[in-house]
Amino acid sequence: MSIPPARELNGSLSLKSKTTKYNLVQVKGTWTKRKTGKTHGQNKNEHVSSAEIHECSEDKGTTWTVVSPIVFTYQVKETQQLLDPSNDALLTGHIRDPEQLEHFRRKPRPIKRFVVMDETVFKLYGCQVKDYFESRGVLYSILPLATTEENKSMEMVMTIVGEVHKFGIDRRTEPIIGIGGGVCLDIVGLAASLYRRRTPYIRVPTTLLSYIDASIGAKTGVNFANCKNKLGSYVPPAAVLLDRSFMQTLPRRHLSNGLAELLKMALMKHRGLFELLETHGQHLLDSKFQSNGLNVDLPSTAAAAVATKVAIETMLEELAPNLWEDSLDRLVDFGHVISPELEMCVLPALLHGEAVCVDMAFMVYVARERGLLSEGQKLRALRCMLALELPVWHADCSLALVQRALGDRLTHCGGRQRMPLPTGLGCAEIFNDTDDETVCQAYAKWHSELGAEPSLSHLMSSLHV
Amino acid sequence: MSIPPARELNGSLSLKSKTTKYNLVQVKGTWTKRKTGKTHGQNKNEHVSSAEIHECSEDKGTTWTVVSPIVFTYQVKETQQLLDPSNDALLTGHIRDPEQLEHFRRKPRPIKRFVVMDETVFKLYGCQVKDYFESRGVLYSILPLATTEENKSMEMVMTIVGEVHKFGIDRRTEPIIGIGGGVCLDIVGLAASLYRRRTPYIRVPTTLLSYIDASIGAKTGVNFANCKNKLGSYVPPAAVLLDRSFMQTLPRRHLSNGLAELLKMALMKHRGLFELLETHGQHLLDSKFQSNGLNVDLPSTAAAAVATKVAIETMLEELAPNLWEDSLDRLVDFGHVISPELEMCVLPALLHGEAVCVDMAFMVYVARERGLLSEGQKLRALRCMLALELPVWHADCSLALVQRALGDRLTHCGGRQRMPLPTGLGCAEIFNDTDDETVCQAYAKWHSELGAEPSLSHLMSSLHV
Repeated sequence: MSIPPARELNGSLSLKSKTTKYNLVQVKGTWTKRKTGKTHGQNKNEHVSSAEIHECSEDKGTTWTVVSPIVFTYQVKETQQLLDPSNDALLTGHIRDPEQLEHFRRKPRPIKRFVVMDETVFKLYGCQVKDYFESRGVLYSILPLATTEENKSMEMVMTIVGEVHKFGIDRRTEPIIGIGGGVCLDIVGLAASLYRRRTPYIRVPTTLLSYIDASIGAKTGVNFANCKNKLGSYVPPAAVLLDRSFMQTLPRRHLSNGLAELLKMALMKHRGLFELLETHGQHLLDSKFQSNGLNVDLPSTAAAAVATKVAIETMLEELAPNLWEDSLDRLVDFGHVISPELEMCVLPALLHGEAVCVDMAFMVYVARERGLLSEGQKLRALRCMLALELPVWHADCSLALVQRALGDRLTHCGGRQRMPLPTGLGCAEIFNDTDDETVCQAYAKWHSELGAEPSLSHLMSSLHV
Repeated sequence: MSIPPARELNGSLSLKSKTTKYNLVQVKGTWTKRKTGKTHGQNKNEHVSSAEIHECSEDKGTTWTVVSPIVFTYQVKETQQLLDPSNDALLTGHIRDPEQLEHFRRKPRPIKRFVVMDETVFKLYGCQVKDYFESRGVLYSILPLATTEENKSMEMVMTIVGEVHKFGIDRRTEPIIGIGGGVCLDIVGLAASLYRRRTPYIRVPTTLLSYIDASIGAKTGVNFANCKNKLGSYVPPAAVLLDRSFMQTLPRRHLSNGLAELLKMALMKHRGLFELLETHGQHLLDSKFQSNGLNVDLPSTAAAAVATKVAIETMLEELAPNLWEDSLDRLVDFGHVISPELEMCVLPALLHGEAVCVDMAFMVYVARERGLLSEGQKLRALRCMLALELPVWHADCSLALVQRALGDRLTHCGGRQRMPLPTGLGCAEIFNDTDDETVCQAYAKWHSELGAEPSLSHLMSSLHV
């Protein structure tokens, strides 16, 4: 009999509980444990992992605690004329390592790309995408799908993985490309994160909303059991490729829809962005975000570039430290406390950003009721929403729905409200102590000022003063 | 007009490419960027994230690179009499923080637990699980499912999330519990990782195979398009609760099945474990791993505890530094190079561990052909397999299948073979240069020595000498 060497037995033989921490060291392809802090016997050729194993032996056996940091790295890239064959971004925008880029360029065998496009986007840009791949000699397959909120389901994810599987791609080097709005990018992200447990993917947002919101974080998802994004994952894309020119073909209502998320970041974090939206909101809608350049001497033509850049920067600041949403205190949840319930309830009457704006408008009243905003600040916030052609009230957003949504939030957020509220125009905090009376009073005020049609139009005119 | 402050514009105004690295600092709930290395203005109350944002401005716009480390922490816990109501592990085994544990114990409202059990395991242990929860005053729901390899599909995942949704659980504090073999735990893990983008889950393995293999890593998955685990995720359980007493009810063939993975770790990493299996393999099968204690004076009764402990430790050493399989060079892939294809091809004729053993036996011939093992070492490895009552050959494992599987591996592993081969009994390396001639010669030898029934029995008797 040969019982394994003592190192494996020591812990278990002792009846006293004792925790030992180990680092992991790789020598010639095999990982072994080494007590944390022990440097004896180290050599330059060994590879030390940032993972740890903590071993604790007790009467009933051993408990190992595995601590394993995984680093997610991804690129968010502004570009122009993405579909021009002279632009490499669509093929290589996800490659960060210069050596890998060199390897890619010298690769003899044909490149393969699987592309999922929203059906409407396919009608508008399908030919350009085909031309791009053909002129670059890429073996490609395009799957157009009606990626609507109603179709955002696991069935559609299964359709995508089925087609990807038939087409065949290299699991590490041939990312799946999604081109479309937020729904499309969420579905493609989930399909890619599931296929072979993680296939790289690229997001190309074609709506303003997805450009500054859905595409730049790690979240993927589909609706389930009539709940928004109930199934999903936190796997960021390899790259997000941003080209504002897609917005040329966006209906005006969809520009407003995206402006709601821009306004969210402005109200929460950036007074400068709020003032830009106040001043240039109409111009942004009229010009469909096509004005270019960052020339400060021509502020209105710079507005589109500045507004999107600042929105992305402020969003990334909040997302990067909380990529897997370990913290439930999220400023980016502003406008997303009661809107998910409202959105699913009135589907498809309100677009996502519209439901978010109704939520934000109500929360502005809550902030006012709590004395966080002055009457003047409240009116400026509402006036800006209206100037962006966004709804500030919805008949189906009843007090009962608001209270139900707040109750659900308590349940889902570990017993705390975690309610982001503006404490000014461009700054905010998370509150956990908004009582039901405040909610009811804010609702009554909201209802009386904006709820009834006549008073709404009255207030609208007063707001527009 | 108020263009945002210069900090947002600086980068974009410059036409020269320049990368700036930022850390993220949280003050009063809001995250802001601070140049890496800059310590001016730091204060004790601020929270600095380990995430970084690298900003690079070029002609076409800005590129942000997000670097966000997520730390996965989970416990693998040996326990005894898990289903005895006096054992807290099933309810609190996933809680690491003493404060949280205290909070849990003082919680006034009833605890809820959703449990998925393999159908067969439910027949054997369902009453005990019910008794456990009832005597602890837990609101529970048990979903028994026929978790076979043939049923391991996304449909079953959707069944689970549907039932979880109806039952209702707290997304952070009420883990889903899976009790069963590897297939059950893989499916439950995927369902939990998808539901609300990540719901904690607990694995209770009831087979030897899942005890030492499937349950202790981060992988979840289901089969798709006739491919093993083609869809899945890398989300570790909150806890793995290990109780060898479940193996009492395991058919002998399933013990052999699990011993294949034990033998894998032994051959790759641990000569002591290999010698233990050589000496005590039959006893482990006969005693169904029920002998207890780690008393070194009674080696055969200690064998079960030692063998499982060492297998888990060696496995965790390889998994912890590579939880998301970023490195494709994996010793734990030994026995898993041609077996996935074989297993799916002959389903349900071979159990997973049996297919793995056929693969390992062939690879022993490859290692012998390459001169990595002596004839004596080769025979000892094969003799050990046979003593563990595992197959060392399968008629459907043709040379064509072997070559196809090796070809697929090249495709899926970035153009390299990454073939783990034993370089002795208890040590191994990854090889990328096994040529087709070596494979064919190894196959011919394998076929002639073990393939034909008469010679197989001849060799078996010679091996058993």
